Amino acid sequence: MDQKKLEVCLTPVLLSLYDVAEYIVVIVDIFRATSSICYGIENGAEAIIPVAEVEDCSAYREKGLGHLLAAERNGEVVDGFDFGNSPFSYTIEKVAGKTIVLTTTNGTQALHLSRQAKRVVIGSFLNLTSLCTWLKTQNENILLVCAGWKNNFSLEDTLFAGAVTEQLKGPGFKMDDSAVSAQDLYQLSKGDLSGYLAKSSHTERLKKLGIEADIAFCLQVDITTSIPVLEGERLVKLTL
Amino acid sequence: MDQKKLEVCLTPVLLSLYDVAEYIVVIVDIFRATSSICYGIENGAEAIIPVAEVEDCSAYREKGLGHLLAAERNGEVVDGFDFGNSPFSYTIEKVAGKTIVLTTTNGTQALHLSRQAKRVVIGSFLNLTSLCTWLKTQNENILLVCAGWKNNFSLEDTLFAGAVTEQLKGPGFKMDDSAVSAQDLYQLSKGDLSGYLAKSSHTERLKKLGIEADIAFCLQVDITTSIPVLEGERLVKLTL
Repeated sequence: MDQKKLEVCLTPVLLSLYDVAEYIVVIVDIFRATSSICYGIENGAEAIIPVAEVEDCSAYREKGLGHLLAAERNGEVVDGFDFGNSPFSYTIEKVAGKTIVLTTTNGTQALHLSRQAKRVVIGSFLNLTSLCTWLKTQNENILLVCAGWKNNFSLEDTLFAGAVTEQLKGPGFKMDDSAVSAQDLYQLSKGDLSGYLAKSSHTERLKKLGIEADIAFCLQVDITTSIPVLEGERLVKLTL
Repeated sequence: MDQKKLEVCLTPVLLSLYDVAEYIVVIVDIFRATSSICYGIENGAEAIIPVAEVEDCSAYREKGLGHLLAAERNGEVVDGFDFGNSPFSYTIEKVAGKTIVLTTTNGTQALHLSRQAKRVVIGSFLNLTSLCTWLKTQNENILLVCAGWKNNFSLEDTLFAGAVTEQLKGPGFKMDDSAVSAQDLYQLSKGDLSGYLAKSSHTERLKKLGIEADIAFCLQVDITTSIPVLEGERLVKLTL
């Protein structure tokens, strides 16, 4: 059998070390962008457009397209926006049939840098098994790109990468050192992800913002089945 | 007590995310640069000058200083050089009283980028406890800089960073996510570092070069006590 690569890019800064054109890329930003995107697409959002800055998001208002605008700074919805980055904003009632413009710094950079990949899809604990089942059918190299925190390593994204490698591992894939490490860290933590992540600096930051409920939500496994995929600038539901 | 930072920079590419002037930096390049440097300084080398390219190393011959020149490509000593990067070249007989110019791509970059640190010292399993004992007395922030492999994450350097955090952990230090992860990976592997590293891609590459003996040598713990420190362009023995 032709062995494929199964690799983990630990932060977007390291993406230039990979030829993304050789891979299906999975973007991972567990707290909270990719979790919210999975939930929103599951709940019938027509599309989600990720942008880096609040100003990029505002620019869509002027286009008069009726898009929902999501922007948050320091845990508060920015004045004049429809909602923030909490996955709880992405319910059926709010997003079904809508296009949402989402401000997300870490995630947007990772997406932008991955544009030349064979395919760019979105992963989170919410759609873990559904994503892995699809990846297994693709017969392509896979690169899990952790959005990280301010361009550096983040534990929660790495653990998710480990959860994916755990499902995909086998003779069909050759893992790199970061995939091996991510998988071992996931093994250590999977019995109590939340307890394990209490050691993480990002979790601490998020708790200070008062969004413990978001954290707990984002650590739920397999509550959705949709796989968001990048088409042009828009994330839409992958047709299986 | 004033809490200090204990952080791990997983590859030199991420160094720009840190203000190195705030830290004592420990450079880590287990296979094989920092292991060879620790062994050479222990064995009485007057100084080791790390350079990036074989040409930089050759340039020293023309200076007529009588330095030993170490350069290797693909596991072979380059023609006209005194020896390669194997720690076995750094014996008392060969290096006592000598200055050695050592070609090491990953390690040199990490050193160069760390120049503004409060202090730059060299770590390897060989001098682990001696290094940690000294670090504990410094009352400074500590950044462990993994040289990595071709600028990306490498398992062996991360495991060593974990070995250091394991010795330093306690209320005096606040660890970042990569330090937490490195420590957990070290915990998993410390009973059989060599067996664990058999999963690593770099170990596989090195084995293909026929240098298993070097690998085993570099995984020996606490066989030296010297701490190499950067002074200008030269690594010399730290006076304790």
